[in-house]
Amino acid sequence: MASCSIDAVRLPTPSRSRADSGVETPSAHHISAGEYYATQPPPSTLEADMQKIRQFIGRHKEAGRKVVLITSGGTTVPLERNVVRFLDNFSAGTRGATSAEYFLKAGYAVIFMHRQFSLQPFSRHYSHSTNPFLDFLELEPAHHSSAPSSPLNASEMTNADPLITVRSPDPAKLRSVLAAYKDVKSRGTLHFVTFVTVNEYLWLLRAVAKEMNILGRNAMYYLAAAVSDFFLPLDKMSEHKIQSGKGSLVLEMDQVPKILKPMVDEWTPHGFLISFKLETDSELLIPKARAALDRYGHQVVIGNELHRRKLEVVFVSHTKASEKATEKWLRIDEEAVNRGKEIEEDIIAELVREHATWIADGPS
Amino acid sequence: MASCSIDAVRLPTPSRSRADSGVETPSAHHISAGEYYATQPPPSTLEADMQKIRQFIGRHKEAGRKVVLITSGGTTVPLERNVVRFLDNFSAGTRGATSAEYFLKAGYAVIFMHRQFSLQPFSRHYSHSTNPFLDFLELEPAHHSSAPSSPLNASEMTNADPLITVRSPDPAKLRSVLAAYKDVKSRGTLHFVTFVTVNEYLWLLRAVAKEMNILGRNAMYYLAAAVSDFFLPLDKMSEHKIQSGKGSLVLEMDQVPKILKPMVDEWTPHGFLISFKLETDSELLIPKARAALDRYGHQVVIGNELHRRKLEVVFVSHTKASEKATEKWLRIDEEAVNRGKEIEEDIIAELVREHATWIADGPS
Repeated sequence: MASCSIDAVRLPTPSRSRADSGVETPSAHHISAGEYYATQPPPSTLEADMQKIRQFIGRHKEAGRKVVLITSGGTTVPLERNVVRFLDNFSAGTRGATSAEYFLKAGYAVIFMHRQFSLQPFSRHYSHSTNPFLDFLELEPAHHSSAPSSPLNASEMTNADPLITVRSPDPAKLRSVLAAYKDVKSRGTLHFVTFVTVNEYLWLLRAVAKEMNILGRNAMYYLAAAVSDFFLPLDKMSEHKIQSGKGSLVLEMDQVPKILKPMVDEWTPHGFLISFKLETDSELLIPKARAALDRYGHQVVIGNELHRRKLEVVFVSHTKASEKATEKWLRIDEEAVNRGKEIEEDIIAELVREHATWIADGPS
Repeated sequence: MASCSIDAVRLPTPSRSRADSGVETPSAHHISAGEYYATQPPPSTLEADMQKIRQFIGRHKEAGRKVVLITSGGTTVPLERNVVRFLDNFSAGTRGATSAEYFLKAGYAVIFMHRQFSLQPFSRHYSHSTNPFLDFLELEPAHHSSAPSSPLNASEMTNADPLITVRSPDPAKLRSVLAAYKDVKSRGTLHFVTFVTVNEYLWLLRAVAKEMNILGRNAMYYLAAAVSDFFLPLDKMSEHKIQSGKGSLVLEMDQVPKILKPMVDEWTPHGFLISFKLETDSELLIPKARAALDRYGHQVVIGNELHRRKLEVVFVSHTKASEKATEKWLRIDEEAVNRGKEIEEDIIAELVREHATWIADGPS
C-alpha cells in the first residue's frame, strides 16, 4: 500500500513559498508495527496500567471465565507536544459502552479500554445527556431554603446527613441500571483503562493482547475504537502551540502501522478477534470489510455505515481457515429502537455463539 | 497579516507527486468576517436557538439584570461533510463552567454557549470524573437482591417507587452544589446553548452579540472558548470519509476571520468584552495579549499559560480609551488549590468590579 502523508509540522518561514516547501518535503514512509514500537515512546502510565490488568486477567483465568477486550472511543493525534490542537476521530463511544453491558450480561469479564471521557457502560445511560444527574436529585425543602445559594462555600455547611431524594424520570430504569452496575462491581468483572492519543492506544493494545494470550481461545478482542490512520512522529511535533497568521502551516503525518497483522500472527494467535469498519459510503462497506479480513486473517469484521449503525451491521466472518468468508446482516427497525431495543444485544449474542464454536474447534 | 493555509482537502491522485500538488495549490486567502458570513451556511438550529435566547435577554433586561455571554470548550473543524475526522482544540471547558458559577453568584444572568459535552456549571463537579454518579447511589439491599442483574429489561420492573439512597463522598458539597443549581434553575438566570463546529460557533456568536446589544453596557462577553484559527470552506470538504493508504492526503484551510473587530465596532459597541489568550510559551503571553488588545480595541485580554492556568492569569486591560493598557497578575498557590480554592473566583470578582466602572463611566 502506498504511504500516506501530509507535509511535516514545522513553524513556517514566511520567505518559503508553498511550492518550495512541497519540493523540500520528504515523502513519509509506511512503517511496520515493529518500527513503530522501536521509535515511539511508551506512555508513562503503561506499567502501572498493565499491573492491574495482569491481576484482572489472572483472576478470571483462574475462574475459567472468558475475557473480552473492548476498545472504544476515538484516538487523538496531537499536533504539538504541549498539546493545544489535535486531529480526532468522531466517536462518542456508544457502540463500545453498550456492547460492554451485553458481554457482562453474557458472563464475560470485560477490559474496557476507552478514550478518556467517552461513554462508559451503565453511566452511559445518563452521561452525555442534556439533563445532568443533578436533575435527578431533590433537596428536602427545609434544607433547600436554608442551603447556601452557591456551591463554593461548602465549609459553611453542617455535616448533617444530607436529606437528598432521588427523582428520576424513569425510576424503574434507574433501579435496573443501578442494580446491574452494583452487581458487576461486586463481582469484579469490569476493568477500566483509558487512552487519549493514538500512541497510548497502540502501546496499550499490544501489551494487553500479549497478556491475554495466556487465556488461549477464551480471549476475545472487540476493537470498536475509532483509531486514527495517521500519526505524527514525536520528532516532527512542534514544541509549542503552532502560531497562526504567519504564512502556511505544513503538516506531515506518517501512516499508523496495521497492527491487526502482528496481533493475529504474534501477540495473541489463539484469540477471537473482531474488528470494525465504519464507512459513510455504503458502496465501500463490504469490499473494504472483505479486504481487511483477507489481509489480516482474523475472525470477524463488523461493517457499519455511519448513519445506519444503530439499525444494521454486516458480519463478514472467516472463522474457519477452510471456509470462504461469509456475510450476515443483522437489522432492527426504527420502531424497535424507539422501544429501547439496542442492536448491540443481537451483535453480542451472535459473537458469543461464534466464540463458543471457535473454542470448541480449538485444540482440547 | 499573511494568510495561513494548509493545502486543500481532496482525494489524492496517486500519480500526482507532493511537489506537483505544492505547485498547483492556490494559496488560501484571509477572508473578512463579512465574506465569511456571506459564503458559509448558518446552522439549521440557529433560529430556534435565537428565539429562546431573545426571550432570555428580554426577561433579564426587564429585570435590569446584567447579562454575560460565556463561551466555553473547543470548536471542531470537520474534514468531511459526513464527519468522521476533525481538527479539534483542546478544552474540557473547565474555565468557562467554573466561571459561570461565580457570575451567577454575583447576580449576573448567564448565557452559557458551550461545546456539546464539555463541562457545565454545577454538573462539572461530578462529570468528567472517574466515579460516575451511579457510585453516589445505593439500592436498598432488599431491592438489590431482587433487582434484575441487567439494565436492559426495565419492562420487567415493578413501577414501585425506587428505594434509592444517596451516598456521596462529600455530602456537604453535594448539598451545596445541588442547592445552588436548584436556586439558579428556579430563578431562570442560566441559559444553555451548544455548538460543535467552528462554523456553528461563529454564527451563534454574531447572533447573540447583536441581540445583547439592546442591553448596552450591561452586556458582558467572556470569550473563554478555544476557537480554531482555521476552517475548511464547505466547498472544499470531502463528501465521504477520506480514504487512507492511497498516497498523500492534502489539506488546505482558510484562516478564521478575526471576529473581535466587527464585534467591537458593529455588533455590540457598548458591551464589556473579555477575550482569552492561551499560550504554552510564557514568553509570548504578554506581547500577544497586548497585540490583541491594540488590534481589536476591546476591554480585557486574560492571558494564561497552559500548565499554570489554574494558578495564575494576567489581565491586560484597556478600559479607558485615554489610558494605556495595564497589566495585572492574579495568582493563587498550589496549597489553596488543594483546599478547593478556584482562581475563577478572583477573576470574576475583578471583572465584576471593572464592569461596574465601565457602566458608571458610560452615558447616563
